[in-house]
Amino acid sequence: MLYITRREHFSASHTLKNDSLSESENEQLFGKCNSFHGHNYYLEITIKGEADPKSGYVMDLKNLKEILHEKIVNKVDHKYLNEIELFKDINPTTENMAVVFWNELKDVLKGELYELYAVKLFETEKNSVIYKGNE
Amino acid sequence: MLYITRREHFSASHTLKNDSLSESENEQLFGKCNSFHGHNYYLEITIKGEADPKSGYVMDLKNLKEILHEKIVNKVDHKYLNEIELFKDINPTTENMAVVFWNELKDVLKGELYELYAVKLFETEKNSVIYKGNE
Amino acid sequence: MLYITRREHFSASHTLKNDSLSESENEQLFGKCNSFHGHNYYLEITIKGEADPKSGYVMDLKNLKEILHEKIVNKVDHKYLNEIELFKDINPTTENMAVVFWNELKDVLKGELYELYAVKLFETEKNSVIYKGNE
Amino acid sequence: MLYITRREHFSASHTLKNDSLSESENEQLFGKCNSFHGHNYYLEITIKGEADPKSGYVMDLKNLKEILHEKIVNKVDHKYLNEIELFKDINPTTENMAVVFWNELKDVLKGELYELYAVKLFETEKNSVIYKGNE
Amino acid sequence: MLYITRREHFSASHTLKNDSLSESENEQLFGKCNSFHGHNYYLEITIKGEADPKSGYVMDLKNLKEILHEKIVNKVDHKYLNEIELFKDINPTTENMAVVFWNELKDVLKGELYELYAVKLFETEKNSVIYKGNE
Amino acid sequence: MLYITRREHFSASHTLKNDSLSESENEQLFGKCNSFHGHNYYLEITIKGEADPKSGYVMDLKNLKEILHEKIVNKVDHKYLNEIELFKDINPTTENMAVVFWNELKDVLKGELYELYAVKLFETEKNSVIYKGNE
Repeated sequence: MLYITRREHFSASHTLKNDSLSESENEQLFGKCNSFHGHNYYLEITIKGEADPKSGYVMDLKNLKEILHEKIVNKVDHKYLNEIELFKDINPTTENMAVVFWNELKDVLKGELYELYAVKLFETEKNSVIYKGNE
Repeated sequence: MLYITRREHFSASHTLKNDSLSESENEQLFGKCNSFHGHNYYLEITIKGEADPKSGYVMDLKNLKEILHEKIVNKVDHKYLNEIELFKDINPTTENMAVVFWNELKDVLKGELYELYAVKLFETEKNSVIYKGNE
Repeated sequence: MLYITRREHFSASHTLKNDSLSESENEQLFGKCNSFHGHNYYLEITIKGEADPKSGYVMDLKNLKEILHEKIVNKVDHKYLNEIELFKDINPTTENMAVVFWNELKDVLKGELYELYAVKLFETEKNSVIYKGNE
Repeated sequence: MLYITRREHFSASHTLKNDSLSESENEQLFGKCNSFHGHNYYLEITIKGEADPKSGYVMDLKNLKEILHEKIVNKVDHKYLNEIELFKDINPTTENMAVVFWNELKDVLKGELYELYAVKLFETEKNSVIYKGNE
Repeated sequence: MLYITRREHFSASHTLKNDSLSESENEQLFGKCNSFHGHNYYLEITIKGEADPKSGYVMDLKNLKEILHEKIVNKVDHKYLNEIELFKDINPTTENMAVVFWNELKDVLKGELYELYAVKLFETEKNSVIYKGNE
Repeated sequence: MLYITRREHFSASHTLKNDSLSESENEQLFGKCNSFHGHNYYLEITIKGEADPKSGYVMDLKNLKEILHEKIVNKVDHKYLNEIELFKDINPTTENMAVVFWNELKDVLKGELYELYAVKLFETEKNSVIYKGNE
């Protein structure tokens, strides 16, 4: 089995908070992450599949790049995540972001020979999350 | 399923040797690694679990950072590994270090919704080991 | 001559704008950078000097780390730069940030044998600025 | 279970094309990758196994390095991939390269306590492929 | 004085050879670099200047990015360097490439408050060249 | 003017101490660096010069690599720095190491068209030193 990965980058700001909690509860739960701050995010999308005998590709990474820009990067780059449509009513933790991105991508990245396998998101070079929606 | 990873760093020295072998056998078995030398290690700890609906976190990475410093980094950073308690009677190869770190962490990193999934240790940027103690 | 460099990291958000311009002029001048967004910044501080014969150090990098945390990192990490004291009435472009950091550091990093040489700030891995205030 | 990984590097050139297609079909299928171009490739070989009680190693990474140079790096470094024996009649996409490297290595990297687990190949820092021939 | 740097990336192939030498002289002079091979190049362009009081920028890095794509990246990415116009009669060593890029950029990157300062080119992560045409 | 840089890597251990001080004075002066510990060092050697018209090289980086291995890497890799000839009576701080390496290299890296310009040494990815012996 083959796994192909494409890495993309975006810069965004966010505030971690649970809207059903009070201000002081949010401060206690999220600490410094409850402030308005931001990150350079790295997004790594992995597709699992077989190589197409004609092209020798699982999927053309130039197409994957375009899909990722259309479906994700253009919506989040240089944005305040708490105020965009993708994260309406969703606290933009790295975990929730990975799940939202999976749901945006899983149908468009399904072909005869391949499917979405994993969404990995680095918030910093020390902190990252992987979501595998089929497990 | 979600996997979250935290990366930490420490610098340490070690000598690879099997105490039940002679000096020349150790030299033959370990080559240049039988000399007293050192590394900048990178440790990546991965937790597997579900996001807590209240916080949107699998686990607060600020807590994970503190646990890793208390349980691992403070014990090994700027130390001679062969002489510390964690590696008593254990040859500090990268493989054995990963297993020792797993055993130090597996109980403290067990919650209702998450558990330790993998310990990855880079000895250099070219050489690394992963230990998955539950496989 | 010796140059020593210490690298630090912080995450922050900002909005690029010139307060003396209208909203549409700011949009035209700064494009997507006029939105609320954020970055993982890397700050590299370089000190120029001679090695102290007693220690063999130009300056103890553990001390430099503490100074950088007290003077810079603690004030900007997980903050909205436009609203903190350091950037009062200053548009937080990477250029202006480097100059502000230089001014915060130049007196405290002046010793008998060394002085501040350069402030380098990476906004992303592709975009960076160096300020040498003595040139 | 333990997984050890060794990273190697080589620089090579290639042209993506399917010899059973016409020139214009190849241009349409492969776009700019149908031109003569090249890359700095990073190859990461992962072995799965148990630590040998005598050495504390799954496998001596110095031996693994030698095997990778003999079996792969020496054959592809500073070469035009389309014209070397390894890729005779094979379109050198990253996917096909990973499969070819797996087949070169799987027998020589089989021991009593370990076996080849994965071949990962980075064509650029944004594009990579993993092949797991036993899945 | 401020220095701003923008990093760009391209993949290309080349053959090092001096057309006035024989084939065997070229083989002896350039060794394995006399073969047709390729690299992922990283290009770092540094501009020296003062910050514009209106924008707080030395130069808008989004404009610099566009200029670098138009003048350099689009001409070399996924190309065989020996056969493109930029390197007509020029042996594409990293040194010569840096000089050619300087000459392409020095006039277009000259403003009232800034000018081109340095062209840095990484052929691999271990090998790089800087050209400062004004020294 | 052209500057070419070659990066090399070695792993070593050291203890920072001034032999003319007492044990407790050394502990106070060097803190945790007074313990036996180690690092993965990265060494970057920069040569300044003009391109040779015949080769288009300032210096063949393959030759530079060999010289660096013979003069430096082979003497320090997998060694305890305090006990090797190069650092006899010298406290192996990063500063002192850079000066020692400069002195080892300055004569052998002097040609008609080029000379040694700078020795940069990374002790960790956050801490580095540059020595320019001609300033």
